[in-house]
Amino acid sequence: MTDKVKGMGISGSYGNESNNSKLVKLGLEVLSNLGAETYFWDLNEKPLPLVGEEGSWENKNVAEFQNLATEVNAYLLSSPEYHGCMSGVMKNQLDWIYNKHVGGKAFALMSTLGGQSNSNTLNQMRIAVRWIHGWAIPEQIAVPNIKEAFNDDGLLNDEKLIERLENTMKALFDAALMLKK
Amino acid sequence: MTDKVKGMGISGSYGNESNNSKLVKLGLEVLSNLGAETYFWDLNEKPLPLVGEEGSWENKNVAEFQNLATEVNAYLLSSPEYHGCMSGVMKNQLDWIYNKHVGGKAFALMSTLGGQSNSNTLNQMRIAVRWIHGWAIPEQIAVPNIKEAFNDDGLLNDEKLIERLENTMKALFDAALMLKK
Amino acid sequence: MTDKVKGMGISGSYGNESNNSKLVKLGLEVLSNLGAETYFWDLNEKPLPLVGEEGSWENKNVAEFQNLATEVNAYLLSSPEYHGCMSGVMKNQLDWIYNKHVGGKAFALMSTLGGQSNSNTLNQMRIAVRWIHGWAIPEQIAVPNIKEAFNDDGLLNDEKLIERLENTMKALFDAALMLKK
Amino acid sequence: MTDKVKGMGISGSYGNESNNSKLVKLGLEVLSNLGAETYFWDLNEKPLPLVGEEGSWENKNVAEFQNLATEVNAYLLSSPEYHGCMSGVMKNQLDWIYNKHVGGKAFALMSTLGGQSNSNTLNQMRIAVRWIHGWAIPEQIAVPNIKEAFNDDGLLNDEKLIERLENTMKALFDAALMLKK
Repeated sequence: MTDKVKGMGISGSYGNESNNSKLVKLGLEVLSNLGAETYFWDLNEKPLPLVGEEGSWENKNVAEFQNLATEVNAYLLSSPEYHGCMSGVMKNQLDWIYNKHVGGKAFALMSTLGGQSNSNTLNQMRIAVRWIHGWAIPEQIAVPNIKEAFNDDGLLNDEKLIERLENTMKALFDAALMLKK
Repeated sequence: MTDKVKGMGISGSYGNESNNSKLVKLGLEVLSNLGAETYFWDLNEKPLPLVGEEGSWENKNVAEFQNLATEVNAYLLSSPEYHGCMSGVMKNQLDWIYNKHVGGKAFALMSTLGGQSNSNTLNQMRIAVRWIHGWAIPEQIAVPNIKEAFNDDGLLNDEKLIERLENTMKALFDAALMLKK
Repeated sequence: MTDKVKGMGISGSYGNESNNSKLVKLGLEVLSNLGAETYFWDLNEKPLPLVGEEGSWENKNVAEFQNLATEVNAYLLSSPEYHGCMSGVMKNQLDWIYNKHVGGKAFALMSTLGGQSNSNTLNQMRIAVRWIHGWAIPEQIAVPNIKEAFNDDGLLNDEKLIERLENTMKALFDAALMLKK
Repeated sequence: MTDKVKGMGISGSYGNESNNSKLVKLGLEVLSNLGAETYFWDLNEKPLPLVGEEGSWENKNVAEFQNLATEVNAYLLSSPEYHGCMSGVMKNQLDWIYNKHVGGKAFALMSTLGGQSNSNTLNQMRIAVRWIHGWAIPEQIAVPNIKEAFNDDGLLNDEKLIERLENTMKALFDAALMLKK
């Protein structure tokens, strides 16, 4: 491997227009500005089947998803919190990647909430990442009141959140390099 | 409501033939012997879409799933543990039911593991159930080495596990009655 | 047992003057107004040793704590969140009570936070309560910015929080009665 | 800082003779053989007060504990699981160390259980470590049936567990070096 950071963004909600997906893309933009190659997995274009669903084991999108996960060395996950847990959409994506794809590589975690802040989803993703032998960096982000988080230009309203996103992406970038050695 | 217990079984794995699904059906059988009406939600026959997937909000199976959840007063959940968490298949089903369908009613939790016992999945389901204002009973079951759990007649090999399943179903039955009052 | 509700308040912070302890006492007051007998365990007067500390197994306060826990049928726990977990002070108290003291009885959970809201502590206490076979009611309370929560008269500033405390205590009271039957 | 690894062992149970403490010391021995300086914090000799207890803020052992935590760059934690959670003894020790003492440094996690394996305690410690900005390595160990784990010579009976301990200590050693850069 060269010293290139390659980042993959995974959103726990469907649709490019969801605020949770927007947050992932904003994070990838920051990562790209730091010098990384970045990829956003778009579930609308390339949906992943539920694990075990008929035909799921031969699904072409799954193979492509796993190949991309194998190729990159940094993962940016963001999930809405449904029922005090990460979304089923996020968990089903994680269920398709294993130690052999992501083990030993760096993850950054984010979560978006309709109401007040919480960290259930962040915690659960941290545990899942450990189970597939990834390294979740200590920096993480929970965004409360996600419906009011973006302005009309698609930018975040909260200065502190912008700063936190930048710091977290820098930490992910550094961790990806550190873990390659 | 009359004093009838109506139980709904939800499996975190696809397919009637999965051992996790078999465990749910065995539990429902015990519940039925106690006098309950029981329903097993069969994902193969009536798949549920991922939340947010195109057309998901108008999906007929979702409406039927929610109606059944509203009608019953006892829920039996069992999920395999993938990556130290409940499966995406289980979480996606839970994402389709809300407080208004299940609040104030009784849940029993089970989890099946490929290897040694663990309770991550049970814990996460307990938290999810609380978030939709259900009551998860204290009794719960984790089945390790699930591939060896059943004999050729489809019965559980482990006497203690059978007893535990019976006790848990009795506790669910009693809780369903208690919470109706 | 008669139909009397007897409630015990356990604080995860030392000192009657801590805001977390104040919240427990306020909850007990509401419970008392509903007709319950209530007890606040005061760690300053009757400290509990760390489990395993020299002499801890013969400690008189431990025996009294366990006796009180056995006698009551409703528990109100509130813990500050330290390092994203319940406090050691709270956990050490819980470590002294077992299934035989509290099994089958009702618990209400509260948590206080220095900054923004979170539910790690609530979740962990819910799991601990399950392990000692208690029933944690679905209603729970997290109080953010706890230093600003009380006014000079020792009352809560936030109307919604007062209402939530009242509803939660009512639910605890009802659950204690329900579970006695 | 030089390239020296300095490791600190923290046990979630009192007493040098507890099997949980023995496991910590065995881990430190492996770490020492890899070239690390190691320290075991002995609660019997130097007990730490409960946070907030009278005099706790001026306690000399606390100051020494925090100084040692500041000086080392690798932490080995092992806690028994009580009530499905890390012990109060472990949590109270963690409550005395903050980001400024341990942030950015490496942690390895172990848990010991009276009965079957479980990972609640490992998960909770992983979350706590993240909150104080430590890096918990992906490798971790849960030891079931801890009472039968050691033979009369104080060595582990299970070959696989010995191997796992060695691998985990090697991973901790490497992570401590990696994170220093």
